[in-house]
Amino acid sequence: MTFKPNPSYIKSKEDAEIFISTFDNFLLDCDGVIWLSETLIPGVGDFLNYLEENKKNYAFVTNNSSKSRESYLKKFHELGLNIRQEQIYTTGYSAVLELQRLGINPGSKVWVLGDEGIEEELRIEGYFPIGGSDPALNDEFYPKHPLLTVDPEVRAVVAGSTTAFNFLRCATTLQYLMHDNKSLPFIGTNGDRNYPGSYGLTLPAGGALVEHLSFCSERKYTNVGKPDTVLAETILQNTGFDRMTTVMIGDTLTSDIKFGNDSKLGGGNGTMLVLSGVTSFDDLKSLLERPHHLEEHEEALVPRFFVDSLTRLIQLLVE
Amino acid sequence: MTFKPNPSYIKSKEDAEIFISTFDNFLLDCDGVIWLSETLIPGVGDFLNYLEENKKNYAFVTNNSSKSRESYLKKFHELGLNIRQEQIYTTGYSAVLELQRLGINPGSKVWVLGDEGIEEELRIEGYFPIGGSDPALNDEFYPKHPLLTVDPEVRAVVAGSTTAFNFLRCATTLQYLMHDNKSLPFIGTNGDRNYPGSYGLTLPAGGALVEHLSFCSERKYTNVGKPDTVLAETILQNTGFDRMTTVMIGDTLTSDIKFGNDSKLGGGNGTMLVLSGVTSFDDLKSLLERPHHLEEHEEALVPRFFVDSLTRLIQLLVE
Repeated sequence: MTFKPNPSYIKSKEDAEIFISTFDNFLLDCDGVIWLSETLIPGVGDFLNYLEENKKNYAFVTNNSSKSRESYLKKFHELGLNIRQEQIYTTGYSAVLELQRLGINPGSKVWVLGDEGIEEELRIEGYFPIGGSDPALNDEFYPKHPLLTVDPEVRAVVAGSTTAFNFLRCATTLQYLMHDNKSLPFIGTNGDRNYPGSYGLTLPAGGALVEHLSFCSERKYTNVGKPDTVLAETILQNTGFDRMTTVMIGDTLTSDIKFGNDSKLGGGNGTMLVLSGVTSFDDLKSLLERPHHLEEHEEALVPRFFVDSLTRLIQLLVE
Repeated sequence: MTFKPNPSYIKSKEDAEIFISTFDNFLLDCDGVIWLSETLIPGVGDFLNYLEENKKNYAFVTNNSSKSRESYLKKFHELGLNIRQEQIYTTGYSAVLELQRLGINPGSKVWVLGDEGIEEELRIEGYFPIGGSDPALNDEFYPKHPLLTVDPEVRAVVAGSTTAFNFLRCATTLQYLMHDNKSLPFIGTNGDRNYPGSYGLTLPAGGALVEHLSFCSERKYTNVGKPDTVLAETILQNTGFDRMTTVMIGDTLTSDIKFGNDSKLGGGNGTMLVLSGVTSFDDLKSLLERPHHLEEHEEALVPRFFVDSLTRLIQLLVE
């Protein structure tokens, strides 16, 4: 008989304090947890201060590759959150780590579908991004467009989020994915479906663009974002966080919560869902109330804790 | 033990004549069969004349919804192919038939992701398309864009191919797909992955855009294109073609060949693959040489006949 996990809903000061005291290290997703697009979620600054005052460690793990770590740092600072660059993990950065793991040397050209975030991370490590934010890719498609001819020096394709996607950007990327019997490595920054925008909008996530290219090319990609466990190992190693006392806080079951569970954070108890983003209370309820016993791949989606938002969590902690 | 079908490769005048004499009615895909983008495949005009002279019937079935039947007729004429509008079946048209089947009345608003082809077909039957080719959707995305607010009078979403896709077009469509607990009907013109363009390009197909929205919204769509068998029934009914003497000629295993097989054209023998488009000889070979017995869903992809191209077929017939 399969065990059906039953997450704790944090609703009182006592619940909140038990949650905080269980962990020393807090990994935080950004979209839907810290902010909604450009708007800071209320109380987040107070929550981070609370962690500091209580000698807790924290870092940010976002599947959004549109900005580099440096640009994210600027965004945090503009929102009044005084964090350090080494606390930020983006999937543009993890794509670079994957290139290195594949033995693709700095100095190599890499075709990018995505925003400056990926390009900046590639340049920092000595790679030459092409494609990406090149304004020539804003053109309308025509079959003899020079960028549709594959540059034979390209060694890999990295695809991630960009709101500048258009037919030409996808078509050029597809030529690289099909090139030489589909032999160029295909790295995707995430496989997320959507994310919560301002004003109640649900917006297409970068992962949906990666999946679009995967569908067109009939190829699988290496996912270097959450829920990939390689990313978790990298973060644990770089931060020195102890796996057993680390928790992942996020708004998405299929990336954040699966990431925490698959990586055995908190010994399997290191996941907290916030309802301020992509997942609603009803979504969680319908997962838990499925008539069959949860299968393994579904159990990985169930958080150990959940709370309305960081706004609510800090209210409970200081009330 | 599963029967592994073995397609006949048409390589001689005798093969070609046997193929032609087996059927009275020829359904022809367009992209990769009749033309590559704007370029007519050589010999196609002669092949159609040959069919006429031998008292054979034919019609065209395209998953491409970018043009209406009227616009396709113009394209055929410009390429020197003198066919009639009632010989053309587009998936923009079959989307309209699906709306009628769903009881959505003319006069209703329909949100469109796609080109003028869908909009024109909707208007002909009295529907009001919104979205689609609206130039306001060429804007850059910003969260307060008026088209991101759902029009409550919209009764369905139709998604198909457009090379004008951008973040705003996908984001607006996603609002309709998520609206009211995902209750608006979601019609897709096809689920094709890619198609062959000029100069050896492989291009993202409209179906990949439909799948993109399906992925973002975590919703299934009603596929009104090939290989959907409802489309086959409509065509057989409208043309009066006898199923037993009808063959589908196409370049794509997953749409054209599956369409012919699932619809039992030619009593299960009514499929011919041409190698002038998306499927290569190696693709076909690797399907046939799979080490296991083909499963049912794979058998549906195997054509009964195949030939290099219509160019080759007419050469053989007149040599």
